[in-house]
Amino acid sequence: MKAEFDFEKMGGLLPSVVQDSTDGEVLMVGFMNRQALERTLEKGYVTFFSRTRQQLWMKGESSGNRLRVVSAHTDCDRDTLLLRVEVEGAGVVCHRGTRSCFTESIPTRSLEMIASASKESR
Amino acid sequence: MKAEFDFEKMGGLLPSVVQDSTDGEVLMVGFMNRQALERTLEKGYVTFFSRTRQQLWMKGESSGNRLRVVSAHTDCDRDTLLLRVEVEGAGVVCHRGTRSCFTESIPTRSLEMIASASKESR
Repeated sequence: MKAEFDFEKMGGLLPSVVQDSTDGEVLMVGFMNRQALERTLEKGYVTFFSRTRQQLWMKGESSGNRLRVVSAHTDCDRDTLLLRVEVEGAGVVCHRGTRSCFTESIPTRSLEMIASASKESR
Repeated sequence: MKAEFDFEKMGGLLPSVVQDSTDGEVLMVGFMNRQALERTLEKGYVTFFSRTRQQLWMKGESSGNRLRVVSAHTDCDRDTLLLRVEVEGAGVVCHRGTRSCFTESIPTRSLEMIASASKESR
């Protein structure tokens, strides 16, 4: 591994964004400790560290919806990861049966007002 | 705010993915405490909680490269956020002068080998 990473900032974990490499959809965020990252890069499939179970888990190992890593990047602080992946199996990432975990919209009137004001001023 | 969020899992912070709403590029990951999230939703511009400075900071407030929130989502665990934004100003998000903070590729021979084996088996 060429790059060194800042695992210290978050108690040994790097927040890791998983993005669909074909259409750019953000599918989930997981966490990797050093061992999970090494496993991910070695196997080419996303392995996280489960904070609740305190153990490694290869995403989709039992369901078949594994995340094949197409490319991996770190950011300017080296404390987060971006993994572009191809979703195998049924293409479902969330345990709720949806493609992405980010299904819950946060409703905000303020956002709508700002968007409409922005349009009017054009 | 309709949705309640799980701030407990990470000591009061939600990892927050910032994605360009037009082309889907993942620009950065920041962290929001409750106050930062409320400020973000109220103002319609991304405000983070800086872990190093231990204070709120509206991204791009001084540079002009503010992040206007187009949509906000939370995930199935309600412990992370996805913010689709329009980058104002010069459109630069990273302090290094690049559009995205995720500029550093993590080189892995294993990934290339897996990709090529995957192609051959098709």
